[in-house]
Amino acid sequence: MILTSAQNPRIKDLLKLRNKRERDCSQLFLVEGYRELLRAIQGQVPIKMVFYSPSHFLGSNEHALIEMAGLQQSARFEVTPSLFKKISYRDRPDGLLAVCAQVPRTLKDLNLHEKCLPFFLIAESVEKPGNLGSILRSSDGAGVDALFVCDRCTDIYNPNVVRASVGTLFTLPVIELSSDEVISYLKKHKIKIVATSPKARIAFTQVDLSSPIAIAVGSEQFGLSPKWMQAADLMVHIPMNGTADSLNVAAATTLLLYEVLRQRA
Amino acid sequence: MILTSAQNPRIKDLLKLRNKRERDCSQLFLVEGYRELLRAIQGQVPIKMVFYSPSHFLGSNEHALIEMAGLQQSARFEVTPSLFKKISYRDRPDGLLAVCAQVPRTLKDLNLHEKCLPFFLIAESVEKPGNLGSILRSSDGAGVDALFVCDRCTDIYNPNVVRASVGTLFTLPVIELSSDEVISYLKKHKIKIVATSPKARIAFTQVDLSSPIAIAVGSEQFGLSPKWMQAADLMVHIPMNGTADSLNVAAATTLLLYEVLRQRA
Repeated sequence: MILTSAQNPRIKDLLKLRNKRERDCSQLFLVEGYRELLRAIQGQVPIKMVFYSPSHFLGSNEHALIEMAGLQQSARFEVTPSLFKKISYRDRPDGLLAVCAQVPRTLKDLNLHEKCLPFFLIAESVEKPGNLGSILRSSDGAGVDALFVCDRCTDIYNPNVVRASVGTLFTLPVIELSSDEVISYLKKHKIKIVATSPKARIAFTQVDLSSPIAIAVGSEQFGLSPKWMQAADLMVHIPMNGTADSLNVAAATTLLLYEVLRQRA
Repeated sequence: MILTSAQNPRIKDLLKLRNKRERDCSQLFLVEGYRELLRAIQGQVPIKMVFYSPSHFLGSNEHALIEMAGLQQSARFEVTPSLFKKISYRDRPDGLLAVCAQVPRTLKDLNLHEKCLPFFLIAESVEKPGNLGSILRSSDGAGVDALFVCDRCTDIYNPNVVRASVGTLFTLPVIELSSDEVISYLKKHKIKIVATSPKARIAFTQVDLSSPIAIAVGSEQFGLSPKWMQAADLMVHIPMNGTADSLNVAAATTLLLYEVLRQRA
């Protein structure tokens, strides 16, 4: 049976997951796209349902991917091309949209003993889903051990976070905790906290980042809170040679993460 | 007189400027926000009209800024708070929205003779306004001499470009040209073109970027075109240590720009 109508109860339930409250209640969320679904499978995210439209497929591996998701036939739903356009939130739908279960991770999921040189990122109160997703993508690229999302403003299961992260949300450990809990964890394990501030005297390329490090970044509008500023072991600035006084938070985060990588290479 | 109605012809004309075709025809565009309007004035962008709503002002210098815009009384329009919410495209309107004239820049605006060490960025076919704006903001921060926008996909006067650039669009020279014209300009002036490719053997931190340099970045989906790949003097990669094979284009651009800065410091 091919689903054709936006009035179908399954489609209605699916569309509701664009809403944060609905995601919170159901502990479900949406994963759209081949790349993202592949990484959800790699990251062992439980996949509950897949909606697909073969005429939107861009490659030839989509059917194999649906098989990999390991779902019963009863949890796979082919939909018409026009209905898929309606349920997609992308400019270029690629015919795959899944409903997955949220699996919150905790500090216990971190194997710190095995790591000789911990490398963490803290995102405090980042507001825009696109920025949080881009931060995730850069954290994955830089090989961060975990991302701590503190005092969240943005739901990490927002479809735009998933999309901007290109699915790295599923393969990188993301742990939501209060700032107090993360600070006490870092202090206990003697991991240096690095904060950026336009007032810091030293540039980010001039400090030693080769020891166990946690980079902390704050909200788009206000930067890091006083709590994190006080907890920081190192304060650095990013040189600003033009008229603006700061970079986009995802751009600034990427610079700091890759400077750690450069120094450790 | 305080404007109250969205049916007012001036308000209707204003709202039309959200549309690219209207911007192209009229050669006008919108600048919203204190910071952005300040930089438009700094960048000598001709300001045609200002619409303002004092109850949305966040600081105390807004009236002085409107004075600085140097407009006749007849080109300043106070609007009611509820109407301002309608004409604003921001989450947090700050009570200032201007109509400005587009001033295209050309190669003649560049004073290359005065520069001993040129530093350019080329953005080829970048699609998303938020990315192009963020690239502008990072270019400003890194002190780039000019940004070349080649084979544009995104209108540089799109309100989201202006916003994501936090107004650096007005203070940094932005030149729209074809790829052929820019390549021949760079070759003529012996400026090395640096392109990124996942296939390049050498990392971006391991090449000498201290000579005259032009960094070239491509579209979100396809990267640089073969034309730029062939024109490139240096090919570099960004280390990817996770599951994804690339960074967001604005994040990648920021890394390359600040690596030039680090090497030249």
